[in-house]
Amino acid sequence: MNEELGLRLHSRVRRLFPLARSLTGQGLRETLQIIAEELPLTVTEIPSGTKVLDWTVPLEWTVREAWIADPLGKRIVDLARHPLHLVGYSRPVDLALSRGELDKHLHSLPHQPDVIPYRTTYWADNWGFCIADSVRKQLPDGIYRVLLDATLSQGSLTLGEIEIPGETDDTVLISTHTCHPAMANDNCSGIAIAVELAHRLLSGPRPRYTYRIVFCPATIGAITWLALNLERVGTIHHGMVLAGLGDPAPLSWKRSRRGDTAIDRTASRILRELGADNKVLDFSPYGYDERQYCSPGFDLAIGRLSRGIHGTYAEYHTSLDTPDFVQPNALAEALLVAERILLEIDKDRRWKNLAPYGEPQLGRRGLYNSLGALPHPGEAQMAMLWLLNQSDGKRGLLEIAERSGIPVAELESVASLLEQHQLVEEIDQEEQA
Amino acid sequence: MNEELGLRLHSRVRRLFPLARSLTGQGLRETLQIIAEELPLTVTEIPSGTKVLDWTVPLEWTVREAWIADPLGKRIVDLARHPLHLVGYSRPVDLALSRGELDKHLHSLPHQPDVIPYRTTYWADNWGFCIADSVRKQLPDGIYRVLLDATLSQGSLTLGEIEIPGETDDTVLISTHTCHPAMANDNCSGIAIAVELAHRLLSGPRPRYTYRIVFCPATIGAITWLALNLERVGTIHHGMVLAGLGDPAPLSWKRSRRGDTAIDRTASRILRELGADNKVLDFSPYGYDERQYCSPGFDLAIGRLSRGIHGTYAEYHTSLDTPDFVQPNALAEALLVAERILLEIDKDRRWKNLAPYGEPQLGRRGLYNSLGALPHPGEAQMAMLWLLNQSDGKRGLLEIAERSGIPVAELESVASLLEQHQLVEEIDQEEQA
Amino acid sequence: MNEELGLRLHSRVRRLFPLARSLTGQGLRETLQIIAEELPLTVTEIPSGTKVLDWTVPLEWTVREAWIADPLGKRIVDLARHPLHLVGYSRPVDLALSRGELDKHLHSLPHQPDVIPYRTTYWADNWGFCIADSVRKQLPDGIYRVLLDATLSQGSLTLGEIEIPGETDDTVLISTHTCHPAMANDNCSGIAIAVELAHRLLSGPRPRYTYRIVFCPATIGAITWLALNLERVGTIHHGMVLAGLGDPAPLSWKRSRRGDTAIDRTASRILRELGADNKVLDFSPYGYDERQYCSPGFDLAIGRLSRGIHGTYAEYHTSLDTPDFVQPNALAEALLVAERILLEIDKDRRWKNLAPYGEPQLGRRGLYNSLGALPHPGEAQMAMLWLLNQSDGKRGLLEIAERSGIPVAELESVASLLEQHQLVEEIDQEEQA
Repeated sequence: MNEELGLRLHSRVRRLFPLARSLTGQGLRETLQIIAEELPLTVTEIPSGTKVLDWTVPLEWTVREAWIADPLGKRIVDLARHPLHLVGYSRPVDLALSRGELDKHLHSLPHQPDVIPYRTTYWADNWGFCIADSVRKQLPDGIYRVLLDATLSQGSLTLGEIEIPGETDDTVLISTHTCHPAMANDNCSGIAIAVELAHRLLSGPRPRYTYRIVFCPATIGAITWLALNLERVGTIHHGMVLAGLGDPAPLSWKRSRRGDTAIDRTASRILRELGADNKVLDFSPYGYDERQYCSPGFDLAIGRLSRGIHGTYAEYHTSLDTPDFVQPNALAEALLVAERILLEIDKDRRWKNLAPYGEPQLGRRGLYNSLGALPHPGEAQMAMLWLLNQSDGKRGLLEIAERSGIPVAELESVASLLEQHQLVEEIDQEEQA
Repeated sequence: MNEELGLRLHSRVRRLFPLARSLTGQGLRETLQIIAEELPLTVTEIPSGTKVLDWTVPLEWTVREAWIADPLGKRIVDLARHPLHLVGYSRPVDLALSRGELDKHLHSLPHQPDVIPYRTTYWADNWGFCIADSVRKQLPDGIYRVLLDATLSQGSLTLGEIEIPGETDDTVLISTHTCHPAMANDNCSGIAIAVELAHRLLSGPRPRYTYRIVFCPATIGAITWLALNLERVGTIHHGMVLAGLGDPAPLSWKRSRRGDTAIDRTASRILRELGADNKVLDFSPYGYDERQYCSPGFDLAIGRLSRGIHGTYAEYHTSLDTPDFVQPNALAEALLVAERILLEIDKDRRWKNLAPYGEPQLGRRGLYNSLGALPHPGEAQMAMLWLLNQSDGKRGLLEIAERSGIPVAELESVASLLEQHQLVEEIDQEEQA
Repeated sequence: MNEELGLRLHSRVRRLFPLARSLTGQGLRETLQIIAEELPLTVTEIPSGTKVLDWTVPLEWTVREAWIADPLGKRIVDLARHPLHLVGYSRPVDLALSRGELDKHLHSLPHQPDVIPYRTTYWADNWGFCIADSVRKQLPDGIYRVLLDATLSQGSLTLGEIEIPGETDDTVLISTHTCHPAMANDNCSGIAIAVELAHRLLSGPRPRYTYRIVFCPATIGAITWLALNLERVGTIHHGMVLAGLGDPAPLSWKRSRRGDTAIDRTASRILRELGADNKVLDFSPYGYDERQYCSPGFDLAIGRLSRGIHGTYAEYHTSLDTPDFVQPNALAEALLVAERILLEIDKDRRWKNLAPYGEPQLGRRGLYNSLGALPHPGEAQMAMLWLLNQSDGKRGLLEIAERSGIPVAELESVASLLEQHQLVEEIDQEEQA
């Protein structure tokens, strides 16, 4: 079953992988169309030039052709061969230039000589090509021809969003970036998992929170979404950024700026429970779009679920980040962990013990082993005792799970049972807020 | 001297051991009579049917005879041979039945084939016998005779209580359970130590706190005591449950639900000081009567002093828990630790440094080594310096002991000395509260 | 450069070393005169008999001659040979006495038989000599002559102080003791470093805080300074005692009584950053003059910078504490650490991010690498991101340094840059206070 899930996630990664995504443009739109094939995705086009917070939506970038020919006329680099060859948002040029002049516009990785790096020049009027260092080192002297047939023109930036309405307008935000071309882990993995989460939330019982799953280009996309949703920011109670979830590294949770919010504590607890190798990382203002959600003006309770950390694995932002690098099992595990975090957050309730003086007599109600003096009570009985003991009106299920080590689902289940026996009652959600 | 103490405690354990105690009835009353022989014990009988919090005082259980005869008429199990053979509160029966039917009412321990377990059926209309698994396995087929001549009838539950009046009505509660038949560690050890503490408190100088030592059947007894003393609960400032204090395991303190009360901190400090093996355990809503005292409606500052933890040692709730399992030294050490915790709690005072600007000149008052520039001050001088430095009116002796590592008794002694020199004054107890 | 600094500090230690300092008197005055040769030192004479807090300024002690002659008339001990031979503040005597009577007035160290200890009898009417235990053991029986030609007379206690005015009256206090005779580490090292700090503060840009460097006899000197400056105590925001900074042990910071003040956190962070061997010690009411500054009435944010801890190294308070024991490198390192702690405290400011919603677009302002998708941002960019992210008006540079691991100097530098771009503004100091 998890195998089937992993393969389904991996097939999404493979389908999304080859598209030539960027901050704007056709690759980004096609990515969202693929999502829209299976989910009720709202797509918004925000025109170039729109002011968004401290930024401006950029011109739309369209590339038709981009190559370098060597002095003999042989095309030594061609965008048609690999989407990473062209520096993202390179400005159009049609030049003949010496090897030395050309070299200033080439990017390669001396320590990974056969690998093409990923680079962008979104905000600077520049151009460049990314190539294998081994190729670069063998370029002969002479005059090179560079053709970069691209347009930067009035257009729009494209956002996708799925809303799963809940019992309240209080919102959980899930955000994943959609602008990276031809890299599987960064970030087809995040998109694939966000899509799967949307399916599960839509097909399950109506959740308590409203879920908002945002597919946006990194940085400018998140900033644009925030600028368009300023009035909604106050309703966001919890959230997570999904990025880099298919590689073989253990899972990691990066804490929000606040560091100790309910989702930080819940994700930390679950990751630690599931594996000693999993990591909980302190907040830092570098990384993915948690940078924007955790800027001091917003300071949202949003952390990030990842596996390997950006910039620390060899495949990061290179042509090595292919679907082969992404493992179905890793995707499936990440999905299940993300889902469990969200479910536990969604299930958090405060209950009130209605018989708080001494223990209520559970046995009379058929809730307790009638045979006494056994060395260990059962698990369900421990869950009942913990729930009753801690439900003083101030602590919710997440907090009780932290203190007791009992999973939230188990606590929720005994809470329902105890409610049927009038031993606990749910505290009004208004009162909880 | 500690040897004598250990032997005295052990002889109490031996005398209490054989009685057939239960939640109610003659064995329980005899247990309290033995205590009353040497201490001013107030005994209260609470009639069956009395509503106590969420519970009801049960009918009184009296057993006259209980045995099983095999198909040849041989009594293979007989209560007269061992008090644990009968499941506590078994309902009367007089039956002839097949081996298979009989087996549903037998309890044994497959992994401890020669041991009789302890079981009860207080609140369910049932009956049973506890036997060695090796005996159970050899029972032949055939018709067995079971005679269980017992009565469940209107009677009462018996509580014992000793009050040691202090300077104030603020109370320290000591509670130990009295319902376990023929087991030495659980809980003749707790009763023996509570009795010794009562002697020491009664024969010592009048304490600051009023001490209330409660001898009660587990669970229903504590609940009954609480129900009868609701108006007194607010005066309970500290307390401890005593249980399982004679086995060879290191000492353990189980924190109260609040976890960080004065007695939790004091007991933890003392246990850590006395041995690296001693344990401080987080609260959990399972165990002994701390479950009731720490229910959320009461939430008292009551932890538990034990050695080995219930359910984790092989002798727990079996016929192996004999006086031989209980060690005089272990009892003596536990008594002294319990007493030290209580004494430190009792001695806690807040003092106010009357010369708080700079150090007062201790040498002029003959309080300081007149030879200067020594590498180390004496211990008494360190105690004086700590007391003066920390006595800003907000911190009491317990807190100063925690920070300084100096025993409370030493701090108390220098406080008296400094008081004689008008360097500190005790903060009014009203003000302290 | 650090070598030069170390040698300069060491030459100050050597020059100060031989003087026969005490709580009062000529040696103390000469010590201050040496400081006054190079710095604007304010010297204050406080008359004997002046009441200072709980103490009284003592009579001034002047010694002309002090020796012991053996039965053959040979001077076996003579103050002229070593300043430590005479117990400080010994009262005058001119006696002939037996070996046994003499012995009651001798101090030696059996475990260090060739070493002269340092002892004082400031506040008790007594006299004594400190000698090598090997000498003491060989004294023959017979009548000894003791001449101790000294005066205790109306005079004064001498304090030295340097004020370095800052932008505000808020003050940083630096205090070092000046009463120890002929010992290099304790405390010519502290004096030498305080002098160097004064030079650096005076020659640098006007600091934010006013610095007050106090040179005072231990205990009574600090108490006298406090008594004379009661109205100023409220302006002391941070401070440090300097003592024992030239020995080979790692650096240590002793926390203030409050334990978690800005200077405690800053010094701890810097010491940990600079070496795993460095130590951060909890406050204790024994040691040097932090005892007075951290008495409960004052409770100042003053800790102590030292190397080896008083009383724990063999040279402590003995004739082994010579300039050879003090290492130029150790002095230089201690000076630089003290300076860095002060500079970071001085540079602490709160900034306010003026574009707190999302990240501001640094690239547009030339503040960010224009090439995107690199695995690591530069250090300066991380500093900018941290400063922007944390500058919500509540956190200052010290706190941001703690959280980010980025040095305060680096944060300060990017704060200036961001201020030029109107991205942050300094929060008014009034508002900060």
